[in-house]
Amino acid sequence: MEKGLKIVTIGGGSSYTPELVEGFIKRHAELPVSELWLVDIEDGKEKLEIVGNLAKRMVKKAGLDIEIHLTLDRREALKDADFVTTQFRVGLLDARIKDERIPLKHGYMGQETNGAGGLFKGLRTIPIVVGITKDMAELCPDAWLINFTNPAGMVTEALLKYGYTKKVIGLCNVPIGMERMAAEILEMDPSRIRMDFAGLNHMVFGKEIYVDGKPFMKEFIEKYTDANVVTTMKNIKDFKWEPDFIRGIGVIPCPYHRYYFKKREMLESELKAYAENGTRAETVKKLEEELFELYKDETLDIKPPQLQERGGAYYSDAACRLINSIYNDTMDIQPVNTMNRGALADIACDSAVEVSCIITKNGPVPLSMGHLPTAVRGLVQQIKAFEQTAADAAMTGDYNLALAAMTMNPLVQEDVDAKVLLDEMLEAHKDHLPQFFVK
Amino acid sequence: MEKGLKIVTIGGGSSYTPELVEGFIKRHAELPVSELWLVDIEDGKEKLEIVGNLAKRMVKKAGLDIEIHLTLDRREALKDADFVTTQFRVGLLDARIKDERIPLKHGYMGQETNGAGGLFKGLRTIPIVVGITKDMAELCPDAWLINFTNPAGMVTEALLKYGYTKKVIGLCNVPIGMERMAAEILEMDPSRIRMDFAGLNHMVFGKEIYVDGKPFMKEFIEKYTDANVVTTMKNIKDFKWEPDFIRGIGVIPCPYHRYYFKKREMLESELKAYAENGTRAETVKKLEEELFELYKDETLDIKPPQLQERGGAYYSDAACRLINSIYNDTMDIQPVNTMNRGALADIACDSAVEVSCIITKNGPVPLSMGHLPTAVRGLVQQIKAFEQTAADAAMTGDYNLALAAMTMNPLVQEDVDAKVLLDEMLEAHKDHLPQFFVK
Amino acid sequence: MEKGLKIVTIGGGSSYTPELVEGFIKRHAELPVSELWLVDIEDGKEKLEIVGNLAKRMVKKAGLDIEIHLTLDRREALKDADFVTTQFRVGLLDARIKDERIPLKHGYMGQETNGAGGLFKGLRTIPIVVGITKDMAELCPDAWLINFTNPAGMVTEALLKYGYTKKVIGLCNVPIGMERMAAEILEMDPSRIRMDFAGLNHMVFGKEIYVDGKPFMKEFIEKYTDANVVTTMKNIKDFKWEPDFIRGIGVIPCPYHRYYFKKREMLESELKAYAENGTRAETVKKLEEELFELYKDETLDIKPPQLQERGGAYYSDAACRLINSIYNDTMDIQPVNTMNRGALADIACDSAVEVSCIITKNGPVPLSMGHLPTAVRGLVQQIKAFEQTAADAAMTGDYNLALAAMTMNPLVQEDVDAKVLLDEMLEAHKDHLPQFFVK
Amino acid sequence: MEKGLKIVTIGGGSSYTPELVEGFIKRHAELPVSELWLVDIEDGKEKLEIVGNLAKRMVKKAGLDIEIHLTLDRREALKDADFVTTQFRVGLLDARIKDERIPLKHGYMGQETNGAGGLFKGLRTIPIVVGITKDMAELCPDAWLINFTNPAGMVTEALLKYGYTKKVIGLCNVPIGMERMAAEILEMDPSRIRMDFAGLNHMVFGKEIYVDGKPFMKEFIEKYTDANVVTTMKNIKDFKWEPDFIRGIGVIPCPYHRYYFKKREMLESELKAYAENGTRAETVKKLEEELFELYKDETLDIKPPQLQERGGAYYSDAACRLINSIYNDTMDIQPVNTMNRGALADIACDSAVEVSCIITKNGPVPLSMGHLPTAVRGLVQQIKAFEQTAADAAMTGDYNLALAAMTMNPLVQEDVDAKVLLDEMLEAHKDHLPQFFVK
Repeated sequence: MEKGLKIVTIGGGSSYTPELVEGFIKRHAELPVSELWLVDIEDGKEKLEIVGNLAKRMVKKAGLDIEIHLTLDRREALKDADFVTTQFRVGLLDARIKDERIPLKHGYMGQETNGAGGLFKGLRTIPIVVGITKDMAELCPDAWLINFTNPAGMVTEALLKYGYTKKVIGLCNVPIGMERMAAEILEMDPSRIRMDFAGLNHMVFGKEIYVDGKPFMKEFIEKYTDANVVTTMKNIKDFKWEPDFIRGIGVIPCPYHRYYFKKREMLESELKAYAENGTRAETVKKLEEELFELYKDETLDIKPPQLQERGGAYYSDAACRLINSIYNDTMDIQPVNTMNRGALADIACDSAVEVSCIITKNGPVPLSMGHLPTAVRGLVQQIKAFEQTAADAAMTGDYNLALAAMTMNPLVQEDVDAKVLLDEMLEAHKDHLPQFFVK
Repeated sequence: MEKGLKIVTIGGGSSYTPELVEGFIKRHAELPVSELWLVDIEDGKEKLEIVGNLAKRMVKKAGLDIEIHLTLDRREALKDADFVTTQFRVGLLDARIKDERIPLKHGYMGQETNGAGGLFKGLRTIPIVVGITKDMAELCPDAWLINFTNPAGMVTEALLKYGYTKKVIGLCNVPIGMERMAAEILEMDPSRIRMDFAGLNHMVFGKEIYVDGKPFMKEFIEKYTDANVVTTMKNIKDFKWEPDFIRGIGVIPCPYHRYYFKKREMLESELKAYAENGTRAETVKKLEEELFELYKDETLDIKPPQLQERGGAYYSDAACRLINSIYNDTMDIQPVNTMNRGALADIACDSAVEVSCIITKNGPVPLSMGHLPTAVRGLVQQIKAFEQTAADAAMTGDYNLALAAMTMNPLVQEDVDAKVLLDEMLEAHKDHLPQFFVK
Repeated sequence: MEKGLKIVTIGGGSSYTPELVEGFIKRHAELPVSELWLVDIEDGKEKLEIVGNLAKRMVKKAGLDIEIHLTLDRREALKDADFVTTQFRVGLLDARIKDERIPLKHGYMGQETNGAGGLFKGLRTIPIVVGITKDMAELCPDAWLINFTNPAGMVTEALLKYGYTKKVIGLCNVPIGMERMAAEILEMDPSRIRMDFAGLNHMVFGKEIYVDGKPFMKEFIEKYTDANVVTTMKNIKDFKWEPDFIRGIGVIPCPYHRYYFKKREMLESELKAYAENGTRAETVKKLEEELFELYKDETLDIKPPQLQERGGAYYSDAACRLINSIYNDTMDIQPVNTMNRGALADIACDSAVEVSCIITKNGPVPLSMGHLPTAVRGLVQQIKAFEQTAADAAMTGDYNLALAAMTMNPLVQEDVDAKVLLDEMLEAHKDHLPQFFVK
Repeated sequence: MEKGLKIVTIGGGSSYTPELVEGFIKRHAELPVSELWLVDIEDGKEKLEIVGNLAKRMVKKAGLDIEIHLTLDRREALKDADFVTTQFRVGLLDARIKDERIPLKHGYMGQETNGAGGLFKGLRTIPIVVGITKDMAELCPDAWLINFTNPAGMVTEALLKYGYTKKVIGLCNVPIGMERMAAEILEMDPSRIRMDFAGLNHMVFGKEIYVDGKPFMKEFIEKYTDANVVTTMKNIKDFKWEPDFIRGIGVIPCPYHRYYFKKREMLESELKAYAENGTRAETVKKLEEELFELYKDETLDIKPPQLQERGGAYYSDAACRLINSIYNDTMDIQPVNTMNRGALADIACDSAVEVSCIITKNGPVPLSMGHLPTAVRGLVQQIKAFEQTAADAAMTGDYNLALAAMTMNPLVQEDVDAKVLLDEMLEAHKDHLPQFFVK
């Protein structure tokens, strides 16, 4: 391909964008990006310009001829794009504050990708992303959509059912983090380690771990449950697992599983943190403001190291890696959210799963994983049913379905309280949920 | 068949036995029972004799020639049996007290068929019932086992995997109660009502309701959620459902679903009741003692009306009805626990489900129900995975698997607490769980 | 229901109509038909009038007030119908002659429901029946369509995918004939016999047989393979099965299975018959003409006994029985073609199968049959794939897909010859296959 | 791993062995084989010595220290093996002559991997290979079995059900040949081409073809159906496909599909060849004798070029490549026969399929392929059912099941003739089918 690649980033004013830009710069020899379009909405215009100018300085410093375009016109940007990434937040961090605060106020987990908060983030996000695929089907039908807006599992599920293009991939940095954690625990070079990932987004398990290609799960579980290494994400408290529980399930849970298998501990800890410091979103908002102050500095022309401290580190780099693998047909293995096609025997063929795939020019091809262990299968199936119900509610604006999704969620399980949460959150997010109000 | 039928009841000393005897007496014209063997263990000998003598008086009063045999020798009883019913309780009501008290003490639901208590009842019961099928395979290979010892779903699942005969049926009075409740709400003669049942034991849904053969679910839901009728069992508090939640799922939950969809309310209510009156088991124990006092009265020769007040009413009559339908190949529809064979598309073919079946001489044949609504499918799949893990733990005595089952249960969801519960309950039930102690 | 029922018969000028009329007359007490609309096309007008007048005389003789309407206006007839039956033949018997003659001429089986002929009958019929459902969805959305136009399996499959109403049932007299044959072989009253049917139309197996409710397959196979009873239909030669083959599959094939399991014998026999007497269709055509001569007789006011000699006897009566069961919610068991919903574990949930169902006011509910024996499962799956490919070709007019269907059919299996057959038959049936010519 | 690898080849006296030896020699730098054990039976002793001595000369000439062991003691050889390959022929070429001659004599396809001949090769081979796995489970439980004895699909299916170790892989050179053919047709370097393979052994389809990573099937089909390139194996006549048929199925059939989609042509051609030259086996037997004459030449110390002319070329090299990929955890893609695990949605999870896999130290991991096109799905399912029935017959010696398998085979489809073939072939192969005679 002579012409360079055109990349479009929806939500381009995000604080993560410098990582994305860095990712393209460092891969430029093999991944010839010629245009990067950063798209945002009116409300994000100021941030877009700050980040966009930093991006231009970074490219200039690198001596590359990547054009940086800043625009509020999504359709102009999408024309003939090769890859589209989505990293926007409908309602910005203020919406996340509500997603966390309202459930916590009622004694339920308030979290942006699980439970009531995750449901509402999905309800706001899904129609927008589906709209993007509608534009893509018209303006760049061969392009791939790499979505890392959360809840990535629910969004990918919705896109496979309602999207106008099926060239969609959901991306998450959780599995990569799990592999790194394993290498750290084993005190081995990461290149010697490989994990089979199987499950759903934020509900993924390390199904097997290989050291130098040999199955090593039994031994790893002993070291893992014994480890002093931090085995979770920045934003999830590192409660230790009961070793016998991990032995019983025989697979490695992801950090987010603590919400389901350590429910009391997590809830108590979040309620305490909330009482002391307010929501996580408020903390993040402050961090973001500090980052943007940094970005404004006209002498800054690299990704500032402070960005690494933010929760979603490696996300944007993972996106660059994925785009590179597709473009170059590298056939390396990466865990992504994609159509199951039978890889997980416990989930329907046409549903989204998070699973180890080989990445080809034609997209991800899942590795067949067979059945999940019985002891974790049911929860994965329940979350899938939740994602599907939520996706249907998001697209139809059906109040009763939204209530069913809220009630059935393992972090709620209470119809009376679900209705209270639903009503209060619908009102709070009214501006971003027209499907529930305009009929 | 010239020879009359030989029925064997394991746990024959149960307070329910008079209902069973009454059931056989009133059906004698079509169901020619000639021998009823009541089997119990050494510890239940006294009760067996009290109930057995009442049974003899009932038969005599009815003027029938049904022989009543009382024995502690299970194998003697099983020889050439036609039907075997199981209604025993391993560890008697004292075990149930522990199943309820220990979880409640730690702030978790303490209930004999769900959560931690249900798990332990399963762990105690399963090896015994499997042992009964081993005897049956040898001594009466053509006989049907009708199990109504709870947790009936978990026990049926275990029997389909580990049992020595596959002629097993799990029976529960919940679906029958739901149909009666529907008739009451609609103020119609029960003969005009029919429900399609689909799900698992104590996790069953009315998938459709017919009035005079016509689908009536939409209308029924409005009356149901509006009703002043009691829509639950004696032992489950009658919290009203959120009407929009029921509209959202589009099916009728069973009373036990309150544990999963009204978790907070149910737990608070149970904890309050426990603080005030102790466990439900203790109440039942007193009721039982009063019943046995009645049974001792040598002038009593009918089923005393007080038995009706006990939670499990209609259970034994349902067993008689089922036996009658099998014997006479009536092909009427009854909801039972049996091998799925595809009837519920969301559950594996060879798993146990509770589903509407036609009852033939060759056993129950499930009616194909297709998929459950997405909004409830996931919970059903999770409970199935729980049942399977529990059954495997019961048969292997694998501590880690038992911990996995406990942790994954929707009423626990907490590995640290699960271990506390598991250890305390294993110790408390030590005598009835040799598989976990003797290796 | 006060108002009597309105029945519409598409292809009302068929020679079978008197059986249908007789069926409604004899069931009038329980099935209060008040209007019977016989619909036909311009080409069938003369026959319609002959049959219609006979129908009127029959009703008069019976002393009933069933109105007989004769019309060429399908939409007028469908308005507010309760049941619609379809028994028409696109292109009349002349089309069948071609379906039989062309393949036989090239050395392949020429038959109206299997192989090349069956494919073409499907291609002609499917768009018409789909069109009828479109009218029904508009004019009588609550009505049931009872289709007995062949190939009934392919047509039902197409309707489940492309039809505008899902209230469709495919009906065939083959299973009923198999039960009768079994009773004859066993020299028992038919009421003592019951067969479980599982498979596809003209590809159905007796999966179990019960005598007085007890499984009897093993014994029956011995009598069946030994029998001197005719075990097939009028139009299928009664070649005897190899007893060990039947023992090996463990189920009872339907007469049409001879095309697949006695391929050489059947083909040789058909080729011989064709050389001697021309096609079966030509024979039938003569029979039909004789029947219509009889029908013209103004003194005739009952179904003439000669109709019984025609191949499709009991078909129309089966339709009346089915309509009666639906109307009266009888819940008796009948084998029909309907959506699988899991009843046959080897076939997709939403595909058409021929299976024992209980017949309710809400339609047929399949009995769960689990897996077919491995030794016959594959052929059933192959015919299902053929039906699906054929249905897609019929609706899209895709030449290549039609060629794929023809080639993959077990009675062809030859791409070069398939193309010869396809081209010659497309040309011969040109007038009735606009989808392949008008683009 | 310090110690070199121990390879065991059952059927070591095969004429293919020099290719295997050459394969190990040329890969020695990365695949450190230190011992190669060639095992054969008493009847093959002479050939074993001829081939074994050639192998020793080859190794010597290469200057490597690979020990060549010749033995009739299988168990001695298997002790601590790392890889076991099987390439033996039960009953030698004389058995193949019967497999071909008897069916042809009766007008049926006589072929060693399909139809009646394939069935009998399976019946003879399966119990022996299962026996080998029994020894392996005891003597070298960590070793992989690479089977390329035909019918490889049926054998792999049997091993997954009856084998004592599950570390088994079935290998076939057909897919590799298809990729080569594609490169030749496209006149491109093979490294630019990749095919997705999905199906069963000798029933595999190219489901997609990629050129430089991009899907290219539509364009390829045009070139493929137009090509003058030979698109088949040495031993299968190169009849051209109907282009519209290939367009209709949308996938690339393997050469063996001609038996099913060009049945008449293939049969006529084989019958003609048989009448003129006798069976293919007799031709091969002569070729083999010539090869062994060559091998005897003590000056020969390389694989003679004449071996390339033999039908199974590249087979042994493929085995070496596979062993190398496992040993070195290369994760390259190879099509092999392995447990489905969901990769083909139309085939049971635990059945054998031939599918593109990544090859890891822990064995092959299938790439998820989703559904096969409907137009070919059914035949694949039917052959799978045939393989399963045949495997069960092979292990049980059940005559009726063998007859069912023979009758249901798409190349037979005739119960009377099937019995004739079965009886004649059972008698002819009596010495190698004790399971059918000794009860």
